[in-house]
Amino acid sequence: MVTVFGMSLSGNCYKVKLLLEQLGRQYVWQEVDIMTGVTHTPEFLAMNANGQVPLLEITPGRYLAESNAILCYLADDTLLWPAEKLQRAQVLQWLFFEQYSHERFIAVARFICKFLAADHPRRAELPHLHERGQRALAVMEKHLADHAFFVGERYSIADIALFAYTHCAADGGFDLSAYPAVGKWLQRVRAQPNFIEMM
Amino acid sequence: MVTVFGMSLSGNCYKVKLLLEQLGRQYVWQEVDIMTGVTHTPEFLAMNANGQVPLLEITPGRYLAESNAILCYLADDTLLWPAEKLQRAQVLQWLFFEQYSHERFIAVARFICKFLAADHPRRAELPHLHERGQRALAVMEKHLADHAFFVGERYSIADIALFAYTHCAADGGFDLSAYPAVGKWLQRVRAQPNFIEMM
Repeated sequence: MVTVFGMSLSGNCYKVKLLLEQLGRQYVWQEVDIMTGVTHTPEFLAMNANGQVPLLEITPGRYLAESNAILCYLADDTLLWPAEKLQRAQVLQWLFFEQYSHERFIAVARFICKFLAADHPRRAELPHLHERGQRALAVMEKHLADHAFFVGERYSIADIALFAYTHCAADGGFDLSAYPAVGKWLQRVRAQPNFIEMM
Repeated sequence: MVTVFGMSLSGNCYKVKLLLEQLGRQYVWQEVDIMTGVTHTPEFLAMNANGQVPLLEITPGRYLAESNAILCYLADDTLLWPAEKLQRAQVLQWLFFEQYSHERFIAVARFICKFLAADHPRRAELPHLHERGQRALAVMEKHLADHAFFVGERYSIADIALFAYTHCAADGGFDLSAYPAVGKWLQRVRAQPNFIEMM
C-alpha cells in the first residue's frame, strides 16, 4: 500500500488524495505540517531533496515527488490518464500549465490571504498574483466555453490538477463569477464518482 | 512533418530543437520573436490561448503547447523517455521540478540580466531569483553527486529539460563552479550523439 506524506490544507496534496479516493485505492495518509519546518529537516530531505509535499512512498524507501508526476504515476493504466498518445500529451500540457501559469499565482495568493497576518508585507505581491492568476483563469474559461473537460471530453487528471486550486481561488481574492464556464466545470468535477471535498 | 514555433534564444524552445536533432527527426522551425508581442496577437492566441512558445504543430491546425509536454510527446516510444512505469514517472518528477523550482528563477534571472537594460527596475528581483535558483542547483548537485544522469543512469528528456537553462545560468549571474557535479553532468550532456548548442 502506498503512503502519502501531505498537508490536508494544501491543494497540491488534495490532488493526490482526490485521485486515490476516485480510483478506490487504499493508502496511508501521513499528515505533515509544513508550517513547522519539518520538510526542511535532514530526515525529510533524505526522502525528498526539494523539501516539498506531497511525497508518495511507493515501496519502503522509494519515493516520488511533484504532485502532478504523482497523479501520472497513480493514474497510469486507468481511464483518468487516456492511453491515446496525443491525449496523453494534452493532459501533460494542462498539468504543466497548472504548475507554471496557474498554481504559482492562485495558490500563492490563497496562501498569503489565508495563512499570513492581515498586515504581512507579502500582501504587496497580491496585485501581480491577481493579474497573472486572472490570465490563467481566462485561458481555462476560453477552453471550457467549448469543452466539458480539459482533454477528450472526459474527466482526467488534468481536471483534478486544475480543480485543486481553482475551486478555492476565492480564498486568494479571485472572483470566480467572472468565469461562468469555469463555474459550470467545477460543478461537473464535483459530480464525479467518489468525489471528496478538500479539508 | 512537425512545425515548431519557437525563439532560438529561449531555453524552453531550445529543448525541443535539441530533442528533434537527437532523434534525427525532420522538422520545420518557424522563428517567433516574442519581444515584438506577436504571441499575444489574435492569430497566435488562436493556436495557443496561453500565448507562449514553443508551440508544436503536429498536423495542420493541431497544436501542442508547454515545452516539457512537447518533449514527452516527441520522445514517446524512444529511449529518451524510458518505458518502465516508475522511471517514466521519475522523468516527469524532474520535468515538473524544472518548471516549478528551476526555470522560473534561473531563466528569469537570465532574461533580466541579458535582455533588459542595466538600470531596469526588474533587477530588484535578482536577489530572490538567485536565492531560489541556487536552491534548485543544490538539489541537482546532490542528485548528480551519485548519478550520471537524472533517471536510470541514462540520458533522457529530464536531462534535456534541465540542461536548457542550467548550461547558460551564468548569463543570469549564477556561479556554476560551486556545483562541480552539475559541471561534469553538463559535459556528459554535451557528449551525447547529435548534440547541438543553443544559438
